[in-house]
Amino acid sequence: MTRVRVDLNISLDGFATTEDGTPENPFGEDWARLTADYVATRTFHERVLHDTSGAGTTGVDDNYAARYFEGVTAEIMGAGMFGLHLYGDDPDWRGWWGDAPPFGYPVYVLTHRPRPSLEFDNGTRFEFLEASPAEGLALAREAAAGGDVRIGGGATTVRDFLRAGLVDDLHVAIVPILLGRGIRLWDDLRGFEAGRRVTSESAPSGVTHVSFERESDR
Amino acid sequence: MTRVRVDLNISLDGFATTEDGTPENPFGEDWARLTADYVATRTFHERVLHDTSGAGTTGVDDNYAARYFEGVTAEIMGAGMFGLHLYGDDPDWRGWWGDAPPFGYPVYVLTHRPRPSLEFDNGTRFEFLEASPAEGLALAREAAAGGDVRIGGGATTVRDFLRAGLVDDLHVAIVPILLGRGIRLWDDLRGFEAGRRVTSESAPSGVTHVSFERESDR
Repeated sequence: MTRVRVDLNISLDGFATTEDGTPENPFGEDWARLTADYVATRTFHERVLHDTSGAGTTGVDDNYAARYFEGVTAEIMGAGMFGLHLYGDDPDWRGWWGDAPPFGYPVYVLTHRPRPSLEFDNGTRFEFLEASPAEGLALAREAAAGGDVRIGGGATTVRDFLRAGLVDDLHVAIVPILLGRGIRLWDDLRGFEAGRRVTSESAPSGVTHVSFERESDR
Repeated sequence: MTRVRVDLNISLDGFATTEDGTPENPFGEDWARLTADYVATRTFHERVLHDTSGAGTTGVDDNYAARYFEGVTAEIMGAGMFGLHLYGDDPDWRGWWGDAPPFGYPVYVLTHRPRPSLEFDNGTRFEFLEASPAEGLALAREAAAGGDVRIGGGATTVRDFLRAGLVDDLHVAIVPILLGRGIRLWDDLRGFEAGRRVTSESAPSGVTHVSFERESDR
């Protein structure tokens, strides 16, 4: 059965976004620190950087990175994650991921300014929808054809789905740094753990992986 | 050398206090959930409940509970933790801990309404001070005579010491529940990890222990 999944890197103080980007370093140093242990994994090297040299860490962080890619057959993301907040005026913008976006399945981009869909040779297809989370999810579920649907991000989109009760499984990689600013993942989610199996696993990197899996046979 | 230490139980969303107490259940169910795995340890049974039957869990959570008691020879706590916010009008109030408070050393209670000091047979002595964190710490350091000083709580007092840069070592037991309300431990502590060695260890209970130890030879 399809499960609706979220994976996020957050700081120990619960921030899922960073705010120190500059024109020279658009993602910023905080983002680099928040994602460093994920980006270092062999899975990230293979799946996102297309680096098949065997580079990258193995172990706990890599295990979770691999799970991130397993079983997902459709995805939903917000307009910002696709880059429309920055490049929405450019009709030729095709996302951040080059010619082989690391999806290989339909990706539904929720936006108030829909545009024509985009197809890539590796099976990735971006569809741009003006739709509520529930409406977008209904489409993605159908497209997933029994596989899992990932809510890819960004933080605001993830929070919309979490608060609407639409997420079955949440995995957070908690990085032991304090950012002190940004979008808080956890606001207004009191009791989210109810009815979910919770597991915690710390990696030698210092990152702790906490998973909430909905106990149901949906 | 004396180290200034803090140990706290917090929720995954960073709350160090709970707000659901009632006259019938003054600490509330959230507090019980926040402290359940600590209260279940053999160390807690022995050191706080004076239960030497061998009851209680051993393992990761108990290891941290034991460290909580090791090497501390003086403590600072806020008026609320001693109970003065509730019982400050009662001159006979002697704290929550019965005839053998689990300290055995001087405890400095910071309060705007000082009262005579209290001595117990087991070496615990409560002293009530109107003093700033730094002033209180200077006294506690001297009393500690080379042992460690613990900032015992509550959350507001701990935050005052953390933000003043007075804490060397912080250990948080992160309980994977979302409380959604209370006092946030992490506010205004951006960059606290700088200059500290950070370790993370998850227990089978689901609790993750994160420690920040100041790298210095003070």
